[in-house]
Amino acid sequence: QEIICIFGTGDFGRSLGLKMLQCGYSIVFGSRNPQKNNLLPNGAEVLSYSEAAKKSDIIIIAIHREHYDFLTELTEVLNGKILVDISNNLKINQYPESNAEYLAQLVPGAHVVKAFNTISAWALQSGALDASRQVFVCGNDSKAKQRVMDIVRNLGLTPMDQGSLTAAKEIEKYPLQLFPMWRFPFYLSAVLCIFLFFYCVIRDVIYPYVYEKKDNTFRMAISIPNRVFPITALTLLALVYLPGVIAAILQLYRGTKYRRFPDWLDHWMLCRKQLGLLALGFAFLHVLYTLVIPIRYYVRWRLGNLTVTQAILKKENPFSTSSAWLSDSYVALGILGFFLFVLLGITSLPSVSNAVNWREFRFVQSKLGYLTLILCTAHTLVYGGKRFLSPSNLKWYLPAAYVLGLIIPCTVLVIKFVLIMPCVDNTLTRIRQGWE
Amino acid sequence: QEIICIFGTGDFGRSLGLKMLQCGYSIVFGSRNPQKNNLLPNGAEVLSYSEAAKKSDIIIIAIHREHYDFLTELTEVLNGKILVDISNNLKINQYPESNAEYLAQLVPGAHVVKAFNTISAWALQSGALDASRQVFVCGNDSKAKQRVMDIVRNLGLTPMDQGSLTAAKEIEKYPLQLFPMWRFPFYLSAVLCIFLFFYCVIRDVIYPYVYEKKDNTFRMAISIPNRVFPITALTLLALVYLPGVIAAILQLYRGTKYRRFPDWLDHWMLCRKQLGLLALGFAFLHVLYTLVIPIRYYVRWRLGNLTVTQAILKKENPFSTSSAWLSDSYVALGILGFFLFVLLGITSLPSVSNAVNWREFRFVQSKLGYLTLILCTAHTLVYGGKRFLSPSNLKWYLPAAYVLGLIIPCTVLVIKFVLIMPCVDNTLTRIRQGWE
Amino acid sequence: QEIICIFGTGDFGRSLGLKMLQCGYSIVFGSRNPQKNNLLPNGAEVLSYSEAAKKSDIIIIAIHREHYDFLTELTEVLNGKILVDISNNLKINQYPESNAEYLAQLVPGAHVVKAFNTISAWALQSGALDASRQVFVCGNDSKAKQRVMDIVRNLGLTPMDQGSLTAAKEIEKYPLQLFPMWRFPFYLSAVLCIFLFFYCVIRDVIYPYVYEKKDNTFRMAISIPNRVFPITALTLLALVYLPGVIAAILQLYRGTKYRRFPDWLDHWMLCRKQLGLLALGFAFLHVLYTLVIPIRYYVRWRLGNLTVTQAILKKENPFSTSSAWLSDSYVALGILGFFLFVLLGITSLPSVSNAVNWREFRFVQSKLGYLTLILCTAHTLVYGGKRFLSPSNLKWYLPAAYVLGLIIPCTVLVIKFVLIMPCVDNTLTRIRQGWE
Ligand SMILES: Cc1cc2nc3c(=O)[nH]c(=O)nc-3n(C[C@H](O)[C@H](O)[C@H](O)COP(=O)(O)OP(=O)(O)OC[C@H]3O[C@@H](n4cnc5c(N)ncnc54)[C@H](O)[C@@H]3O)c2cc1C
Ligand SMILES: Cc1cc2nc3c(=O)[nH]c(=O)nc-3n(C[C@H](O)[C@H](O)[C@H](O)COP(=O)(O)OP(=O)(O)OC[C@H]3O[C@@H](n4cnc5c(N)ncnc54)[C@H](O)[C@@H]3O)c2cc1C
Ligand SMILES: Cc1cc2nc3c(=O)[nH]c(=O)nc-3n(C[C@H](O)[C@H](O)[C@H](O)COP(=O)(O)OP(=O)(O)OC[C@H]3O[C@@H](n4cnc5c(N)ncnc54)[C@H](O)[C@@H]3O)c2cc1C
Ligand SMILES: NC(=O)c1ccc[n+]([C@@H]2O[C@H](COP(=O)([O-])OP(=O)(O)OC[C@H]3O[C@@H](n4cnc5c(N)ncnc54)[C@H](OP(=O)(O)O)[C@@H]3O)[C@@H](O)[C@H]2O)c1
Ligand SMILES: NC(=O)c1ccc[n+]([C@@H]2O[C@H](COP(=O)([O-])OP(=O)(O)OC[C@H]3O[C@@H](n4cnc5c(N)ncnc54)[C@H](OP(=O)(O)O)[C@@H]3O)[C@@H](O)[C@H]2O)c1
Ligand SMILES: NC(=O)c1ccc[n+]([C@@H]2O[C@H](COP(=O)([O-])OP(=O)(O)OC[C@H]3O[C@@H](n4cnc5c(N)ncnc54)[C@H](OP(=O)(O)O)[C@@H]3O)[C@@H](O)[C@H]2O)c1
Ligand SMILES: CCCCCCCCCCCCCCCC(=O)OC[C@H](COP(=O)(O)O)OC(=O)CCCCCCCCCCCCCCC
Ligand SMILES: CCCCCCCCCCCCCCCC(=O)OC[C@H](COP(=O)(O)O)OC(=O)CCCCCCCCCCCCCCC
Ligand SMILES: CCCCCCCCCCCCCCCC(=O)OC[C@H](COP(=O)(O)O)OC(=O)CCCCCCCCCCCCCCC
Ligand code: HEM
Ligand code: HEM
Ligand code: HEM
Repeated sequence: QEIICIFGTGDFGRSLGLKMLQCGYSIVFGSRNPQKNNLLPNGAEVLSYSEAAKKSDIIIIAIHREHYDFLTELTEVLNGKILVDISNNLKINQYPESNAEYLAQLVPGAHVVKAFNTISAWALQSGALDASRQVFVCGNDSKAKQRVMDIVRNLGLTPMDQGSLTAAKEIEKYPLQLFPMWRFPFYLSAVLCIFLFFYCVIRDVIYPYVYEKKDNTFRMAISIPNRVFPITALTLLALVYLPGVIAAILQLYRGTKYRRFPDWLDHWMLCRKQLGLLALGFAFLHVLYTLVIPIRYYVRWRLGNLTVTQAILKKENPFSTSSAWLSDSYVALGILGFFLFVLLGITSLPSVSNAVNWREFRFVQSKLGYLTLILCTAHTLVYGGKRFLSPSNLKWYLPAAYVLGLIIPCTVLVIKFVLIMPCVDNTLTRIRQGWE
Repeated sequence: QEIICIFGTGDFGRSLGLKMLQCGYSIVFGSRNPQKNNLLPNGAEVLSYSEAAKKSDIIIIAIHREHYDFLTELTEVLNGKILVDISNNLKINQYPESNAEYLAQLVPGAHVVKAFNTISAWALQSGALDASRQVFVCGNDSKAKQRVMDIVRNLGLTPMDQGSLTAAKEIEKYPLQLFPMWRFPFYLSAVLCIFLFFYCVIRDVIYPYVYEKKDNTFRMAISIPNRVFPITALTLLALVYLPGVIAAILQLYRGTKYRRFPDWLDHWMLCRKQLGLLALGFAFLHVLYTLVIPIRYYVRWRLGNLTVTQAILKKENPFSTSSAWLSDSYVALGILGFFLFVLLGITSLPSVSNAVNWREFRFVQSKLGYLTLILCTAHTLVYGGKRFLSPSNLKWYLPAAYVLGLIIPCTVLVIKFVLIMPCVDNTLTRIRQGWE
Repeated sequence: QEIICIFGTGDFGRSLGLKMLQCGYSIVFGSRNPQKNNLLPNGAEVLSYSEAAKKSDIIIIAIHREHYDFLTELTEVLNGKILVDISNNLKINQYPESNAEYLAQLVPGAHVVKAFNTISAWALQSGALDASRQVFVCGNDSKAKQRVMDIVRNLGLTPMDQGSLTAAKEIEKYPLQLFPMWRFPFYLSAVLCIFLFFYCVIRDVIYPYVYEKKDNTFRMAISIPNRVFPITALTLLALVYLPGVIAAILQLYRGTKYRRFPDWLDHWMLCRKQLGLLALGFAFLHVLYTLVIPIRYYVRWRLGNLTVTQAILKKENPFSTSSAWLSDSYVALGILGFFLFVLLGITSLPSVSNAVNWREFRFVQSKLGYLTLILCTAHTLVYGGKRFLSPSNLKWYLPAAYVLGLIIPCTVLVIKFVLIMPCVDNTLTRIRQGWE
């Protein structure tokens, strides 16, 4: 049984100690106050810092960086030992050097390894390790690192070797980040939504108010969101496939794949997943908003009144096959598009994408992805139907919102169509096949 | 190539043997009846138990505990070898000591390691390892344990070190458990549902029958479930956030975080995930039940008749903007609430929660979780609208069911509102920051 | 710091080199053209092939198989070293022997290990390792294999030991496969859909056209798919549970479980998951198609006209409690069935099924699965209601499509019902318990 020493009997120290005891390690705690050992796990020993350090050659420093100074007094006993730094800061770039490097400076004779900082004390203790089980490990001494990684693995966590101690800076950032990859897609879609919202308010609320004195404000609850969301979804979906098309044009133009893309394109390509998932979210909202249409008071009132009027006029409505066709087919296209959309979403789940091979993943994401785009674009086109761009549909020279929403998708589809022409495609394939 | 010995040519022995052969091990089986070796994997040798044992220093005992006795005769040849106990019992606590400990008593000279008991023979053989790939391993000899864990890893499974052989008792319980964490939430929601069902039956079926002789029994198929389910969902959702609030009050009252919560609170906090997912399930049912409203015969009949009556009276229905606002906004609130609800569900998927860091997980679960609660409560409040608690809405002094459903959510939200007041919040943060 | 040599500065070589540098390895590239080293990761050295080989005892051959010949000139310097073959072919069975075995023939003195071929260069470089993180490793020298597996693990990937180098043939197939397990279920459901589509076209479009000259073609967009999809879903769902029933009968008949099932049954049992998920997909489409019914032009037109007619006749529609019961209960059954269906789908997600034990998985998949089948069958039966098989419902002697769809589900349920009779069940349990 390996003995491990933990400095600090705070939340994290206790939780880690408990977990380690459960996994078969012997634990000795170092504390300023070895007597006052309430709440400590059964079976653990508590000693003063220096005595505890003597018992083991692996010491986990479960103390805030601010209180590291006292360790300088222990340099001798810590010499040659493995010190595991698990500390986090309160904000990114709080200190010039990472905590682990600071620790290495304080105790130059020890092998400092950074680990465990992404794990929450509460989660460790309660076993509710819902958030990440990944433990990022770095350090300059590879033997020390290896021993820490073995411990991590034995605790049922997943160690990820990140290289030398300089990586600690990066590792200390992880637990402070909040969805960094989602930031750009999120702001983009927020801007899109707000713009479209005001655009629709002008067309659907202010315009009728100005010309017909009709109070249409209630439309802002459902009708207008149900324009804004699907158009945002469609635009975002097109923006997922636009960078691939731009990249292809660039490669064709340059005649080689061995040149880096401009930074903006690189970044764009890396956040396509997030763009796509946001698009799915908006599409989902669109579907819900659409499905509740028939239970809305306004719709029931309108249809009811229509029927009453007809009944009073004693006139039945003639049936138009072409309307039935148009209405049914745009809805059917939407449903099929949404279905494939959900499929794309399911294959983005880490566990599913992990279970398919690269070719299968590409097949779903690229082939079915384009099919999704085609179906959703067709859905909107057929919905627009004959009204599309007809002057009677302009209000204050503003076309209907969905016309704007169609610009990017149609552009992407047209360029892609050109790119898969055999002549262009062959050149591209040759370029992508490699070394000229 | 390592040679591994398997005792017993039954289902599990054969399946494990086959898998090991595929992963590059050499296998020798021990059997009572080495000749009758039908269905055994190609390439495996079959010998008598004692001969087979001589060939390898790792022996997997794929035999039911009930037949272990004959191993006592082999104590000599098994001396110093690693015996892997893979057996399960038929029910929890069938025997006083665990099977692995029993084996260790029978063959005191061997190093007994418990492993593989959670893996199904059929799954091993067919490769359909859908259920858990985790292999819990325990044993007193750490070298032996390590070797078994290496084998587990090479088979593509995930070993989890659980410490010394005393953990075998726990490990043998795993495959016999049936959703232990879901039990309490499940019973709680069942009780809630049944209570609400009868409550609604009284108000919506029996009351009209008594006073108007109307046969409303058909309401028990959709209308009443569509009251029971959303109210249960809302209550469960509030119960997810109640313990956090209670914990905060307790911490404020005690002035420290370093005291254990009462057991009931601890347990409640650990089953919040299950409560939340059940709430999501009920909300999902509510959404489906709501979306089918317009295709129900009863609704079509009622709306049709309403229109016919109006047409006969030659009176159009006046449009009420405030009704349109109310109706649209409660539905919109419901949709947004449900959307966030689904998001909470998606982030509970183990693979997704594993890919986010703790801060992100907390952000979604706690911040967005409260937003979900707010939206869902607002949805219900606006749905209630003016009728809320109006005496005309009481039947036999019983208020509408949703009024009951609002009690807990509103309480939680009010207390939470108090807790995030700067003065209270600062104290709480200080307490939670740690060591006084 | 371990030094690793990579032959070839193409896409894969560079990406792998970059990743390895990030994880703390030292990299030296071997190239035909050591000067022209554009785009190579910072910190890597580039030498000629032979010089580079001298620097390390692990050499990764990031070159297409077609250009392996020059390695024969380096046999001396490569002697005793570990060569990692990462190459893929363009199609399955392009060459008689696997690339790795070919490499082993070319450089007989080296230890060839196959690895990394399932990882995409682009994913490695961008960190977007969405598709599989699994690295299948095989090789004849177990020490060499172990070292490669350690590297794989340090890169944050999951090594899977597949045994000796003969497994390379299989491993080289993986990245070229496209959903092999889904093929049969996919074709089966395609055939079912097409058949049902034409069946319904005959009954719902051609028949009315012939007898009433009605143009019903618009039904092909929604109404007919909304027959085809649910019936396919129900049939596929029944086909998921049919093999289990057949297997039980076979075991009862043979009186033993220790005989292999016929191949077709084995294969069928292994693709039940895929059948089930396809069924879920079709059910999902059915639900969407059903929920949009009230917003279809045709439905609005029909209901509107009905009401107008009644208003003109000044006749209210009488309310039929039994219709209300029937309509509400078939819809409620459908909703509950779909809910359980979705639950089955959720537990098939690899990460969820990984988190439950075998007993729990069986409980959901088998017990709740049968409940799903029962609910969906009941939904269809009640939907059929009294019209079921009534002669007036035959068109050209063809019964309604759902009648066909009920055959397999009802058969499965009836046989299962017989099988769970205590007398039969006991015999079966005894047989399944094992060794006679
Ligand atoms: C709902 C939804 C979910 C999504 N989930 C994910 C997800 O989980 N993960 C994800 O990555 N994307 C995701 N996406 C985004 C999108 O589907 C993928 O990025 C898709 O692969 C883009 O397809 P494409 O044909 O435009 O790719 P392209 O850009 O045409 O091709 C990209 C591929 O081509 C190859 N390639 C590109 N450039 C080069 C080059 N210079 N040299 C060699 N090869 C090159 C690479 O293999 C690369 O992967 C999602 C989208 C949606 C709508
Ligand atoms: C659909 C759905 C899915 C859900 N899925 C999950 C899930 O997957 N996993 C899950 O855990 N929950 C899940 N939940 C439950 C719920 O969302 C979370 O438990 C949520 O985090 C509770 O938030 P809270 O603000 O009430 O937490 P609080 O109880 O206020 O805070 C809890 C957090 O505070 C901290 N804390 C609490 N007590 C202490 C203490 N004594 N010392 C130091 N820190 C302390 C801890 O970090 C703890 O995690 C789910 C809920 C729903 C509705
Ligand atoms: C939406 C959906 C998702 C699904 N997802 C999955 C999935 O992820 N994974 C999956 O596997 N299936 C999946 N299925 C298919 C299906 O649910 C399962 O296969 C289900 O377990 C079949 O149940 P059954 O009672 O017919 O099994 P049975 O065939 O009656 O029993 C099978 C089980 O019995 C035992 N058994 C069978 N034969 C023998 C024997 N000769 N000796 C000893 N024991 C034997 C085994 O334990 C075997 O697992 C899914 C189905 C649906 C509809
Ligand atoms: N809590 C988490 O979820 C979490 C997660 C990841 C990382 N971490 C990191 O773990 C470290 C400890 O966090 P924690 O939550 O355990 O904090 P804590 O509860 O405040 O405990 C800190 C411990 O440090 C010791 N200590 C030594 N010198 C000290 C001094 N001068 N003043 C105060 N304490 C001193 C104390 O132990 P003695 O009284 O025994 O000396 C005290 O219990 C931090 O670096 C934190 O970033 C925490
Ligand atoms: N089946 C599973 O899915 C599974 C999963 C996890 C764990 N397990 C455990 O694995 C063990 C074996 O299960 P199994 O399903 O393989 O059972 P089984 O099919 O009944 O096989 C048991 C084997 O034990 C041997 N054996 C030795 N002495 C025996 C005796 N006196 N009577 C009967 N058999 C004797 C027999 O092999 P010989 O004829 O060759 O001697 C027989 O084939 C059990 O402990 C079980 O709990 C099974
Ligand atoms: N790309 C992927 O996503 C991927 C994924 C898995 C496996 N692979 C495998 O990795 C290997 C390399 O793929 P790659 O995409 O990196 O190909 P690539 O970009 O075409 O690079 C091939 C490299 O091979 C070297 N080479 C040596 N002799 C050569 C010759 N006679 N002709 C041409 N090149 C020669 C060249 O490097 P120098 O100029 O430096 O000599 C060249 O850069 C292939 O076996 C492939 O199957 C690739
Ligand atoms: C119905 C559609 C589903 C509903 C809503 C869509 C959600 C859109 C937003 C997803 C947000 C995910 C937050 C992930 C947090 C994160 O950063 O997560 C980070 C992880 C890991 O990312 P990396 O692997 O890139 O590090 O990303 C994910 O795991 C993405 C998960 C995507 C899940 C999509 C699930 C769709 C499931 C659809 C089911 C069927 C629906 C049926 C409909 C009727
Ligand atoms: C649409 C809503 C989705 C539908 C229904 C909600 C399901 C609610 C019940 C979930 C039950 C999960 C059983 C898990 C068994 C278990 O114990 O599983 C145990 C595991 C692991 O638990 P531990 O990690 O705590 O050990 O728990 C889970 O994995 C929970 C999985 C939750 C999945 C929620 C998925 C929601 C996805 C929504 C997708 C988008 C829907 C779009 C809607 C139109
Ligand atoms: C709403 C229902 C959900 C929608 C649609 C159903 C999708 C049906 C088709 C699934 C196809 C999955 C492709 C997998 C590719 C693959 O090979 O994947 C291979 C993997 C791994 O397989 P192995 O483990 O067998 O190797 O299989 C899977 O991961 C299957 C994933 C199943 C996902 C089902 C998800 C259902 C989620 C429902 C959420 C809630 C919905 C709420 C509804 C309103
Ligand atoms: C179940 C699937 C879907 C259904 C039933 C559906 C239905 C509808 C309906 C009924 C409308 C008209 C709304 C109105 O009258 O105001 C509409 C509009 C629209 N839909 Fe869909 N849709 C679906 C999926 C999608 C998807 C996946 C997308 C693309 C991302 C999409 C994009 C659009 C767009 C852009 C509009 C035009 C919005 C406007 O300007 O009014 N739809 N859809
Ligand atoms: C898509 C999302 C949603 C929609 C469209 C929706 C719609 C509705 C509708 C139409 C009603 C009135 C039902 C009736 O007339 O009987 C209702 C009631 C209700 N909803 Fe929702 N809802 C949604 C989501 C939610 C969610 C997520 C919750 C909370 C968990 C919720 C809780 C309630 C409650 C408690 C009632 C009152 C039930 C009663 O007493 O009748 N809803 N909802
Ligand atoms: C939310 C859940 C569900 C709802 C609301 C629902 C509703 C309906 C409705 C309204 C119909 C009649 C369609 C028509 O008039 O043409 C129908 C038919 C049918 N449903 Fe469902 N259903 C659901 C789930 C399911 C599921 C899960 C299955 C089985 C896999 C299923 C199988 C069928 C079948 C076989 C028919 C007969 C199709 C025909 O011949 O017209 N349903 N369902």
